[in-house]
Formats: sequence, C-alpha cells, structure tokens
Amino acid sequence: MRQKRYFLQESDLPRQWYNIQADMKNKPMQMLNPATHEPLKAEDLYPIFAEELCRQELDTTCRWTEIPEEVLQMYTYYRSTPLVRAYGLEKELDTPAHIYFKNESVSPVGSHKLNSAIPQAYYCKKEGVRNVTTETGAGQWGTALSYAAKAFGLEAAVYQVKISYEQKPYRKSMMQVFGAQVTPSPSMSTRAGKDILTRTPNHQGSLGTAISEAIELARMTPDCKYTLGSVMNHVTLHQTIIGLEAEKQMEMAGEYPDVVIACFGGGSNFGGISFPFLRHNILDGKKTRFVAAEPASCPKLTKGQFGYDFGDESGYTPLLPMFTLGHDFAPANIHAGGLRYHGAGVIASQLLKDGLIEAVDIMQLDTFKAGCMFAKAEGIIPAPESCHAIAATIQEALRCKYEGKSEVLLFNLSGHGLVDMASYDQYLAGNLVNFSY
Amino acid sequence: MRQKRYFLQESDLPRQWYNIQADMKNKPMQMLNPATHEPLKAEDLYPIFAEELCRQELDTTCRWTEIPEEVLQMYTYYRSTPLVRAYGLEKELDTPAHIYFKNESVSPVGSHKLNSAIPQAYYCKKEGVRNVTTETGAGQWGTALSYAAKAFGLEAAVYQVKISYEQKPYRKSMMQVFGAQVTPSPSMSTRAGKDILTRTPNHQGSLGTAISEAIELARMTPDCKYTLGSVMNHVTLHQTIIGLEAEKQMEMAGEYPDVVIACFGGGSNFGGISFPFLRHNILDGKKTRFVAAEPASCPKLTKGQFGYDFGDESGYTPLLPMFTLGHDFAPANIHAGGLRYHGAGVIASQLLKDGLIEAVDIMQLDTFKAGCMFAKAEGIIPAPESCHAIAATIQEALRCKYEGKSEVLLFNLSGHGLVDMASYDQYLAGNLVNFSY
Repeated sequence: MRQKRYFLQESDLPRQWYNIQADMKNKPMQMLNPATHEPLKAEDLYPIFAEELCRQELDTTCRWTEIPEEVLQMYTYYRSTPLVRAYGLEKELDTPAHIYFKNESVSPVGSHKLNSAIPQAYYCKKEGVRNVTTETGAGQWGTALSYAAKAFGLEAAVYQVKISYEQKPYRKSMMQVFGAQVTPSPSMSTRAGKDILTRTPNHQGSLGTAISEAIELARMTPDCKYTLGSVMNHVTLHQTIIGLEAEKQMEMAGEYPDVVIACFGGGSNFGGISFPFLRHNILDGKKTRFVAAEPASCPKLTKGQFGYDFGDESGYTPLLPMFTLGHDFAPANIHAGGLRYHGAGVIASQLLKDGLIEAVDIMQLDTFKAGCMFAKAEGIIPAPESCHAIAATIQEALRCKYEGKSEVLLFNLSGHGLVDMASYDQYLAGNLVNFSY
Repeated sequence: MRQKRYFLQESDLPRQWYNIQADMKNKPMQMLNPATHEPLKAEDLYPIFAEELCRQELDTTCRWTEIPEEVLQMYTYYRSTPLVRAYGLEKELDTPAHIYFKNESVSPVGSHKLNSAIPQAYYCKKEGVRNVTTETGAGQWGTALSYAAKAFGLEAAVYQVKISYEQKPYRKSMMQVFGAQVTPSPSMSTRAGKDILTRTPNHQGSLGTAISEAIELARMTPDCKYTLGSVMNHVTLHQTIIGLEAEKQMEMAGEYPDVVIACFGGGSNFGGISFPFLRHNILDGKKTRFVAAEPASCPKLTKGQFGYDFGDESGYTPLLPMFTLGHDFAPANIHAGGLRYHGAGVIASQLLKDGLIEAVDIMQLDTFKAGCMFAKAEGIIPAPESCHAIAATIQEALRCKYEGKSEVLLFNLSGHGLVDMASYDQYLAGNLVNFSY
C-alpha cells in the first residue's frame, strides 16, 4: 500500500516556535508609534495585547520561543495535523509532480487559526485578563478564538465583517455555541463603527473595520485585551508550528519541497508553513520557491505599494511597513472573507521586497473550480480561502506536466469549507462572478 | 503531558471486518423473501445489491472478512480515526469516570458513513455496475456515498428525506460538489413516491420513503445497484472497523471499556463500535455494558415491537425480524435526521432480545444541551445524532460520580455538526421542542 498520510507522535511535536527574523539578512523596517512616529516599543502595545505577545511582536533576534506546556497540551487535542500525499489530485491532473498538503482543516474548529488562538488566550489568562475581543472575516479566526477563550475561562466578544456575517451565518452560530458574543461590523456599538457608517452608510465591512471596533472595545473595557488572527508577527510566530511539523513529516515521506504554497490574507498561514522551510534557503542554500496566492480583487502583494500604513480602517494600530492597497480600501465581496484585507504582514512584505518569496493573484471563479476538483479527488471540501492555494498548486502541477518535471509541491490546506457551502451553492448555480482590482 | 489522542500506524490498521453472528449463541432469525415468505437467499437480493454484498448480508458463520486492498487504501485517507480521552468533558462533569470517544467526525465527509460507502462503491465497481442509488436522512450517508461513488468512477443518485433536504440544504450542496444528483423524497419521480404523496400529500419523508424510491430506481435502471447506509448486516460488518481500531487504541491507553455507547438509527454505528468488544463478553467473560441511545420520539428499541417488518415504507425490502414501530411510522421532525427510522437492524434486535445490549431514549432538548456542553469542553460541535450518544454518556458519567466509580466509558462520536448549525441556531434561540412517542 502507498502511504497516504504522515503523523507525528505526541512526543515528536515541535516544542518551540520559529522566528525567521533572527535569520533574515535584511530585517523588516521598524513599526512606528502612530502618535510620535518613533519606533514602536513593546510598552506602546500593552494597552492592546497581552504583554508576552507584545514582547514576541517586537522580538527580531530570538530564533526560538518555547511553547508553554499548557499550550502544547491543547495542541495535542488536534496536532500533529496530517501531511497528506494528494494521489487523487495528481491522478486527476495527470502530473508527474508529487503533491502534498498539510491538512489544517482537521482542527476541531476547522482551520489553522486555533494554532494562535490557543497561545493568545493562554497568555491573556496568565496575565489576569478576563475578557478578549477580536475581529473575524469569514469567521474561522473568530470561531477559533471563541473556543480557545472558553477553554481558558475567558469571555469573548467578536466583531464579524458584516458581509461574512450575512453570507456565512453558521460561523456566527458556531461562535455562539462556544459562548461568544458576536456583532456584525461596522456596528453602532463603537465610535469607530459609527464614524465608518456615517461616512459610508451601506459599508459591508472589512477586516479593517472590524479590527478598529475590536481594538476600541478592548481599550474601553477593564480587564480586556484585543487578539488578532493574522498580520502581526506574533501570530505568524505561532503558526510556524505548521511548517515545523511539515518539515519532520516531509522527512518521513523521504522528500523535500521544491515549491511551498499557501493562500494569503494577512500572511499568517503562509508564513506558518513557509518560514521553517525558508530558513533552509537562507542558511543551507536550498532553492525552494514560496508562492503566496491572493485574490485578484484584493492584490496587495502583486499590485499594492510598499510603505507605512495602518493595519485597520480607523488608524488605531501602529504604522506598519508593508505592501498595502491603502487602509481604507474596500475589498469586493468575494466569498474568501479571510483574504479581504488591505495589507500584508511586515515580515512577508520585507521578504517579497527582497525577492525571497513570490505572489500570484487568482480570480474567484478559478478558485472554486479548483476547490471542486480537489473535493472530488481528495474528498475534502476546502474553504474558499484555501481554494486560492489549491488553484496556485494546480498551476504549478500543470507547469510540471508541461516541463516534464517531478517537482515536490507542498501546500497548506488552511481550512475546510463545510460552513461555506452557500458559496459553493452559488458557484454551482452559476451565480458567482470574477472581481478585478 | 497527558496523552490526549491515540492513533494507529497504517501498518497496524485492521485488515478484516468482524461478523458477530459467527459468535452469537442465538443467531438472528432468518430474513424472509416477501413474495414467498421463504427464508431469503442471496440470489433474491442480486437485483438490488452488488453480489458480494448479498453474500456478506446472509453470511452468519464466517467470523472474519478480508478488507480488499483497494478499500484499505481508501481507508488510509482518514483512518485510523483518533481515540480521544475527553479530559475537558470529565472536568466539566467533575466525574471520576474516564471518558473516551472514537472520533469518526474526522472523516473527510464528516462521519463514520464513509466506512461502508467505500466498500459498497468498490464492490459495485468491481462487478461492472455504473450507477448507484441510495437514500439519505440528515445527509451524512448520502455525502459519503456521493464521494465514494466519485472515487470509483460511478454516477450517484440520492433520495434525501424531504424534511432534512429543507432543514440542512448544505448537505445537498456537498453531495452536488461531489457530483451526485439529489432529489427530495417523497418525490413524483417514482411510483413509490407518487403513491406516498397521493396517500399523504404533505408527507415530510422518512428514511423509509427514501429507501423505497432508491430501490425502485435501482430496479428500473440498467447497470444500477442500490446501496444502503445502515440497518443491513453488511453495513454493520463494514462499520466494525471502528470497534476493531478502538480495541487496539484502548490497549494503547492501557484501559478497557466498562460501558460502550453509541446513538442508534438503524444500528450500524452502534454495531460498528460495539460488536468487536461484545465478542469479548461472549467469548472471554468480559462484563462490558453496551448502550444504544435513541430519540424519545422514535423509540423502536425501548418501545417498539419485535417481529417481521419491512425496512422501507412501500414494502420493497425483505421481511426483517426486528424491533420496529411499523414500517409506515412517520417520525417527528427532530433534527437528528439520521435517527428517524422505524426499525432496528436484525443483529442488534436479536442482541437486545437476548439482553446482551441495552437501550435508552433521549429527549431532543437534552441532546442539544449535551452537544453544547461537549462543544465547549472538547472544541468539536457534534452532529445532532451523535448528541444522543453524548447525552447518554453524560448520564453514565454522572452515575459514576454518584456511585464514586472510575468506570471507563467509550462512546462513538459518529459525526460533526458543522452542516447542522441551523439546528443549533434554533436550539440557542429557544425554538426547539421535545417530541414524545
């Protein structure tokens, strides 16, 4: 029998997260305090995030961070996730490429987001916080944070992007089952939300608006911190558990990736699977390519500008040096809600600038076509976000076929699409369209 | 760290299914040909099922059946499923019981149903069949069969119980993504459906009506066989992979179950996890209890009659010796669509008659209460069907607490509820009610 899936024993789980900044020759430019335009200090972030997360955010030198025992224990609820050889997809494409995917969809909440929700909730709890707030797009992050908050005995308030709240009502139900309060954003419950709705009465929301509202609530509420599902360095740090596991699992399979692919919203799932392999490009002369797949309608990596910008709509965050479409960019209503974000994380932005990673933009209809092909071939219905990674992987696999090369492709299946079936319904009915930038 | 999950290596996967009939002192009574009232012969079933499945159906003596290599290979796509220690639920209940669950929800289609869909599609393909039909209630079986059919290059036509088709529209979408044709039952597309709708114009459908329609379509279509998700012996045979894995995994955990619990619709998930352990009661003097959890509104085990009855609404199936509420029983519209079936499988019926297994009936509101508690404690939102098993497990765990006993409880988490969030929505909004028999 051909081996299909590779797991790690609990005793072989990685016990540290990896910080690629320690190995980067060109470090990312410093984040700035928006009030002073001075380089950001950890203390500047204390009103928003748990202190240990602020330390992690600004740590550019420490290569490895110990994963706390309590976090590791929670990781064992679903980790290691399987590394899977996509024999079905290879056969369907008739490609000589070897296609692997890291299946993060087996997390109990359905995506990789739990990898950072657990440590964020843990550090908040450890520092005496009792309430957490956050934003969510498609709802994958909000669901993860809601469950992690419950696991550590915290109350959670989630601002969900309004268009996703309406397109994907069952994500809201999941968060409510886990005991969270969910509000569609922009809302009238915050100053930021009121201002946005005054300017644009029919605003459908974006991750930028929801972040503004969640930060404001955290600042205004005692014993309350904000948590974030992507973009920031500490989130990507936690997500490196994906790539660190995959590294060991690829070794079990006796292979090493020529191309690593992930979808790109703020960059945490992309960085999570890529950075542990990218360090071998930097340190050991490996030549792996790293491909970020973004929506054609929200193409900050392929068509954005590099410069300082805010991470949210209302300018509550630090100024971040990043590829951006502008913090007031209103993305088209594509179904990949988790990718509807104007900017790219600071580390990924620097790596793109330096040519260490690549980006490709994909049209919405191509993503669902890829998702349906993958579902039939592998049995797993992917999240609309993950469909971007699959579409990019199919492009690479067809290139390998054309060139007659047996390259090893690895992509991150960041989540399943079982709560996104309304989107598939519309695709199958021919009601979806492409959006350009 | 406490070990949370137990996996088998691919090389340790069971390679045979277990037929408990070989070890039963009182064999089940024979099924009857409905036309002649003579004992059923395998040939009588050939017009409906693949021939190897007919052989398995009537095989009462062969203890072990080899799992074909192609089926084993497909099993490796998701098996072994994890055996999980429910530390979170134990803590929530403050019980001395050790609670384990077999997590069948990690199957790509979200439930244990794939365990039988794969071999059924495989045997059909091997015997030259090109089309398969089936019924589905909540849609878990239909989804599994749709994917398995696609994997073996077969066309699938699925009759879905009308009330579930409406309550759970996204199961239909999943089946369509896998390329299946889905029709709500009763429909006007078959003679059986027309007759039912003529008698009862607003009939909401049941597994009984959908089975009639699917069998009729299979009989009327060339190169077409019917497949079934539960009730029949061969389905339960395939599902014993669950218990056979669990047996090895409990050994890894150094424990043996005092109580094994599963929800009960037709009996295949219950038999699947129970029968491999029950054989040690029969052969080795173990004293494990086996508890089938059924809906209070569809209580064939606790309130049904034992006798010969049809498996479907229209009388197309053999006459089965079973506990039944009558083949024209119309179950209340509970959200656990997979348990809305009038009869119990032949083997389980005999075992209940002989006192080798037990049954308990559960009210709908108690099932969702249990499901929400489990979701908060373990992070997994269970299918409404599985909530019955969880509610029964909680009862046992609280008994252990009252009696001060550290018993080992094992239940089957047959599926997740991510496509059932509309049901949870209604529960959380206070819109669900209990239904009595």
